[in-house]
Amino acid sequence: MIKQDDLTLVRSLPMFARVTPAQLDSLTRHGSLQRYPRGTLLFQEGERADFLMVLLEGGVELFARDQAGTEAVVETLFPVDSFILAAALTGAPYLMSARTLLPSRVLLLDAATFRATVAADPDLSAPVMAELAQYFRRLVRQIKDLKLRTGVQRLGCYVLGMAGPADEVQLPFDKRTLASRLGMTAENLSRAFSTLRDHGLLVQGSRLLILDRDKLTLFSRPDPLIDAQEGPLSLTGE
Amino acid sequence: MIKQDDLTLVRSLPMFARVTPAQLDSLTRHGSLQRYPRGTLLFQEGERADFLMVLLEGGVELFARDQAGTEAVVETLFPVDSFILAAALTGAPYLMSARTLLPSRVLLLDAATFRATVAADPDLSAPVMAELAQYFRRLVRQIKDLKLRTGVQRLGCYVLGMAGPADEVQLPFDKRTLASRLGMTAENLSRAFSTLRDHGLLVQGSRLLILDRDKLTLFSRPDPLIDAQEGPLSLTGE
Repeated sequence: MIKQDDLTLVRSLPMFARVTPAQLDSLTRHGSLQRYPRGTLLFQEGERADFLMVLLEGGVELFARDQAGTEAVVETLFPVDSFILAAALTGAPYLMSARTLLPSRVLLLDAATFRATVAADPDLSAPVMAELAQYFRRLVRQIKDLKLRTGVQRLGCYVLGMAGPADEVQLPFDKRTLASRLGMTAENLSRAFSTLRDHGLLVQGSRLLILDRDKLTLFSRPDPLIDAQEGPLSLTGE
Repeated sequence: MIKQDDLTLVRSLPMFARVTPAQLDSLTRHGSLQRYPRGTLLFQEGERADFLMVLLEGGVELFARDQAGTEAVVETLFPVDSFILAAALTGAPYLMSARTLLPSRVLLLDAATFRATVAADPDLSAPVMAELAQYFRRLVRQIKDLKLRTGVQRLGCYVLGMAGPADEVQLPFDKRTLASRLGMTAENLSRAFSTLRDHGLLVQGSRLLILDRDKLTLFSRPDPLIDAQEGPLSLTGE
């Protein structure tokens, strides 16, 4: 039995905004709510997707590993967000592993029930399609970021994006994770932080202070078609 | 009026496999078939998505540009494939520009008609969702490729992927495009080709010969969760 507060969190996801009480009941009846400590492996790439996961509290990293065991972070997620929709919809094997970055609460929705519910109802399939389109566009933005920018610019734009209008950012994960998310080695990240000191950014442990926003912006050159957070999309196209 | 042969090509896309004649008629009536010479800009990032495009013949690159005008190729596409589904579905601005790599024939389907047709019919929306999921997974693979591998390994895996079981590959575009697709500079690509000479690959202009497949494979380490071409996905999960 999922509590009302948690159901409200689930409905705050655009793709579930129009889910009926009956659908939500059926989805959660075949699911479960789990609490995980930090560092818990939720699933591994290559496994079949049994669940769609909804992150209600905490933080999660999606990562991949090469044959030598080196890891690369593809995405970091914070509440409320769902992962790993494409695999759950198609039943294809996960291309990424997932691990909690923080103590987390995760709602596990049975993938087969989810697929059947979505396929049967245009009121649900339209927003799910929009959500998938949004995830796709997030990755396009990341590929543009990786291919068009130096590591230092990438870091600068990432910090500006995290900060929003604020001048102070607390890193929500360690620098190893940040380096990996940005496609850099830990050494390169640390060099990049030093470089940004000359461009208006002060680093104090995991606390980042933007001392000169204009200077940091001029150097990092944020681009709305890469860095802007896209509001919820819909199929109406309005 | 679209010819029967071209309609057959359109239907070869998994997402259109179950489109009814009436739907197809309505989609193509609000669309047009265009021929473009090589090097034609089809649309630019930032513009609103008016069309879903289906590539029937030729080749297309999706690319992005930074403020200094530097370009990066995000994807290269060959027939039959559709682009740019996520933007066409949501009406959001294109995140990438598109240009023909070869003389091409492209079917332009009006985005608003496409959205309305898809939203109204679960027989169409389910395969469109599967197609979007597949595009998402292509980008996940590319991000893993960019973050987990050196440029030389990336090139080796790309060549092995293009070659399939054959030992000879003709590059379908110039080396500048290849370098950009792989997230490398032209100089790094040319160094990478030299390195691969010691690992079983012979380069003669745009012709690549795999002389020692085992050696090239051992060095490049292809990974099915990055390099395997995924067959059509479906929402049944089977």
